[in-house]
Amino acid sequence: GEHEIVVIEGDGIGQEVIPAAVAVLQAVDEVGFSFTEKQAGDDTRDQTGAALPETTYEAAADADATLFGAAGETAADVILPLREAVGSFVNIRPARAYPGVDALQPETDLVFLRENTEGVYSGHEDRLSEDLSTLTRVITTSASEQLAEYACSYVTERSIDGFHTVHKANVMQETDGRFRDAVSRVAASNDVATNEVLMDAFATRVCLNPTQFDVVVCPNLAGDVLSDLAAGLVGGLGLLPSANIGQTNALFEPVHGTAPDIAGDGIANPSASILSAGMLLEYLGETDAATNVQMAVESVLNSGPRTPDLGGNASTEAVVNAVIEQLSSH
Amino acid sequence: GEHEIVVIEGDGIGQEVIPAAVAVLQAVDEVGFSFTEKQAGDDTRDQTGAALPETTYEAAADADATLFGAAGETAADVILPLREAVGSFVNIRPARAYPGVDALQPETDLVFLRENTEGVYSGHEDRLSEDLSTLTRVITTSASEQLAEYACSYVTERSIDGFHTVHKANVMQETDGRFRDAVSRVAASNDVATNEVLMDAFATRVCLNPTQFDVVVCPNLAGDVLSDLAAGLVGGLGLLPSANIGQTNALFEPVHGTAPDIAGDGIANPSASILSAGMLLEYLGETDAATNVQMAVESVLNSGPRTPDLGGNASTEAVVNAVIEQLSSH
Ligand SMILES: CC(C)[C@H](C(=O)O)[C@@H](O)C(=O)O
Ligand SMILES: CC(C)[C@H](C(=O)O)[C@@H](O)C(=O)O
Repeated sequence: GEHEIVVIEGDGIGQEVIPAAVAVLQAVDEVGFSFTEKQAGDDTRDQTGAALPETTYEAAADADATLFGAAGETAADVILPLREAVGSFVNIRPARAYPGVDALQPETDLVFLRENTEGVYSGHEDRLSEDLSTLTRVITTSASEQLAEYACSYVTERSIDGFHTVHKANVMQETDGRFRDAVSRVAASNDVATNEVLMDAFATRVCLNPTQFDVVVCPNLAGDVLSDLAAGLVGGLGLLPSANIGQTNALFEPVHGTAPDIAGDGIANPSASILSAGMLLEYLGETDAATNVQMAVESVLNSGPRTPDLGGNASTEAVVNAVIEQLSSH
Repeated sequence: GEHEIVVIEGDGIGQEVIPAAVAVLQAVDEVGFSFTEKQAGDDTRDQTGAALPETTYEAAADADATLFGAAGETAADVILPLREAVGSFVNIRPARAYPGVDALQPETDLVFLRENTEGVYSGHEDRLSEDLSTLTRVITTSASEQLAEYACSYVTERSIDGFHTVHKANVMQETDGRFRDAVSRVAASNDVATNEVLMDAFATRVCLNPTQFDVVVCPNLAGDVLSDLAAGLVGGLGLLPSANIGQTNALFEPVHGTAPDIAGDGIANPSASILSAGMLLEYLGETDAATNVQMAVESVLNSGPRTPDLGGNASTEAVVNAVIEQLSSH
């Protein structure tokens, strides 16, 4: 049957790169989709009073999968509830350098598996006095175990030799200690090898030599910051897709934001969104199509038209057409 | 009169690089010191039961300044109380690339001003159930303001054009919002320009182009992780000094750890510790001596003997002697 996909362009270049990704999905002949457009973001808040209308939340919750672009200043109010709407417990963030694209560390090939529900994101904040506010950082064994089980399947299915666990348990002894212990217990019971790295040490080491890492499992904020660090090593956010995976639903988004400086100019790099659509295909079990999309993007990055962020002067449309042409030539 | 300096070598290469820094201080003829050695770290814990004996804490609290090396697995139990002992509210972490030293981003020249008392480091953790633990992250207006006042003096004295404030107030709205607002209020009242950057965006942007930043003001954990990131851009932790500054006391330490793989071999890079001693001189008002030490280290890094971490095969001692020779030639 058809896959029911909710499409949320959001603000800024989301309105350019998400249509690009949809065009690529439509060009995948062997897979059938029905697309439903929904609103969210700054414009939506200005028009309706809510950055994430109930109907958008419900549509994402009921879809087979959702493709989301970016939101401006309302980003947190949109993306955090959307991750919850699809019941996502892990945010997958591959950070790869591509042949033909300038990168500070051209050998980088990492995948971050970021815990997607708790840590400082659980959002309990209190203003306790005129002078003092607190945030309650939450770590549960159950969420840590669920992430670790996913990480074990992830590396086992791909014949990857274990993963690194990143944490700051020397300071956050009880909470990150709980995280670290849960992850290593699950890994041990799945016969998966793990190494631990402190969050700060990881930041140094990944710059100096990213090839020493492969799959990196981490708490929520660590995953946010360290995957953005990795984006810097591979040439910027324009290439990074992501997948928010739940038990029975998922949401896919480029890691980049709304890029207000170039929004509306038709020159946004659609690669991150198209690669996100590729991860959506993989999630839906359309493995061949996923591989084809991934390879088409790689081929265009290597020798096709380039948007200005990659040093070219091609339009978003020219890149999308080149990707679709590559797809059809298979 | 003489400056009373407490010296804590700690574990591993701390026992090599701190004597090196002391030798350099002793070679600064125009400044008088008395040095008192104190114990802390893994070995001390094994021998005395306490990683940071009361006598060491008190000595640091009473000194004019303290020079500390590194501690192994007891690092958090040693360095966090020591920062408190000297009443430190800001951790200064310069991250510079040096001519002649391989660096991923050779133009990097940053100074992190890290809040040094609170955030996730305030250490209130609770095991609320079999499944769930919490950490109470604390942000106060008073600590944020004190940091910001320091930052304003820092840039004003050095004729630097403002600073960047790094935070994650889009997620930690109440706590990092409080931090951001306090910092920008203080900056405005001192006529100092500030720009805000989200912590994750900073991680990408500093990799891609570190020259867009100069002085970076941030909460405790952000400063920890982002300064270690910057270490990766300038060629590793072997070159990064740091200063923990309080109202009437201070503690200086290399950012690197105990390096157990090379401890005892006599080949540890003493640059970070000697540069930390240079920051100590500056703190004590010995400005000329501070400049001389800084320049001597730079000159040796550029064209003197190098330890193996920098691709050479010189010993720690050879580097120290070269630095001292440079000093005397002035
Ligand atoms: C917008 C923000 C809430 C979000 C996050 O911190 O998760 C973003 O940085 C991301 O990584 O998708
Ligand atoms: C050892 C640890 C507690 C410490 C910190 O996190 O502050 C270290 O990483 C540092 O930055 O000096």
